[in-house]
Amino acid sequence: MTTEAPAAKTVLPETLVAAMNWRYAVKKFDAAGRIPLDQWEALEESLLLSPSSYGLQAWKFLVIEDKALRAKLRPASYDQSPITDADKLVVFLVKKDAGPADVERFVDRISEVRRVPAEMLEGYKQTMLRSVSLPPEKVEAWLTRQVYIALGNFLTSAALLGVDACPMEGFDKDEYDRILGLHEQGWKSVVVATAGVRAPDDAYAKNKKVRFPKAEVVGRV
Amino acid sequence: MTTEAPAAKTVLPETLVAAMNWRYAVKKFDAAGRIPLDQWEALEESLLLSPSSYGLQAWKFLVIEDKALRAKLRPASYDQSPITDADKLVVFLVKKDAGPADVERFVDRISEVRRVPAEMLEGYKQTMLRSVSLPPEKVEAWLTRQVYIALGNFLTSAALLGVDACPMEGFDKDEYDRILGLHEQGWKSVVVATAGVRAPDDAYAKNKKVRFPKAEVVGRV
Repeated sequence: MTTEAPAAKTVLPETLVAAMNWRYAVKKFDAAGRIPLDQWEALEESLLLSPSSYGLQAWKFLVIEDKALRAKLRPASYDQSPITDADKLVVFLVKKDAGPADVERFVDRISEVRRVPAEMLEGYKQTMLRSVSLPPEKVEAWLTRQVYIALGNFLTSAALLGVDACPMEGFDKDEYDRILGLHEQGWKSVVVATAGVRAPDDAYAKNKKVRFPKAEVVGRV
Repeated sequence: MTTEAPAAKTVLPETLVAAMNWRYAVKKFDAAGRIPLDQWEALEESLLLSPSSYGLQAWKFLVIEDKALRAKLRPASYDQSPITDADKLVVFLVKKDAGPADVERFVDRISEVRRVPAEMLEGYKQTMLRSVSLPPEKVEAWLTRQVYIALGNFLTSAALLGVDACPMEGFDKDEYDRILGLHEQGWKSVVVATAGVRAPDDAYAKNKKVRFPKAEVVGRV
């Protein structure tokens, strides 16, 4: 990590705004459309680098390419076509029953990556242990919110690369968990994003983006 | 909105990954550092353009520049210096007691922007009304998760512009709500982000980023 912004590598303000205006929740993907490999690898890397509270990363991003499996998930997703037709389907997962063991694992990882003795991380560890000692439903709600940071990061990253995407909350989480065998592996599905290439005839692409006036959404004090 | 990706305007995969590696949660800002106006305006526009479930936008982004007010908020934020020292402080708010009136307002806005009669949006409206008719605490939890999409978008947008930022959950929400008079205005504080210029001596900038191995975080089926 450098302390100076990699100026030559940053994006112009108008590029950011153009990308955010270009993106929309694609309802119809080109079933033959493929995301170039280097772009997809960057999107996975961006997911991995998503910020989270304490950096705890109590999440997993399940990329489903198996078409038969995706056909099984589609009925559990209100039969929405992106589930099968988009190049990629990512199911965002949150750790089930997260607790002290997850904190331990993270502290060990910090110790390993930064080459600091775990004892030096004791204060940080205690703070995190307090957070995961809240009632389980509160811990899960908190960690689930972190997953939405990763979702927001993914959608913005995709837009900037010129990759089409569609976030989806409209699916049966219990069915997804069952079909994907998630609970047994210690995970729960939270939200889905599909990514690929918009179909040229997706009528939604022509809809004007609807936002409330900026003066109502961005307040100033 | 165009149907083709603005190819000349998109970002290279390596630019995205470099920006995500460059960013970190800044703990010490340069109190004299200012975000160039065009970059800040793009960040506000990016916030406005954040995706949300149904596009409902039951949120507000409060930009606090008033230094006296920020000094009052700092003790309610574990005395963390970015609250006063970062160029910008954004408090992310969720609509309090969101319900049918918020759906009506959004449907009216769609009708206005897209010039379609509100009657044609009846099906969409009914779907949204069902979502906001869940128990109030569930509705609030759902809308709060949407706010985290905006946070993720903001952090990634900032990184790509080369703007330093720090997200913060460690603050007293009740105190923020009281100091900012949010409840009376129908809002609740959710999360905070500060943005500005990292101090050259912020020790955290030198820390290696800690992520679990990609193979453990990105699953494949």
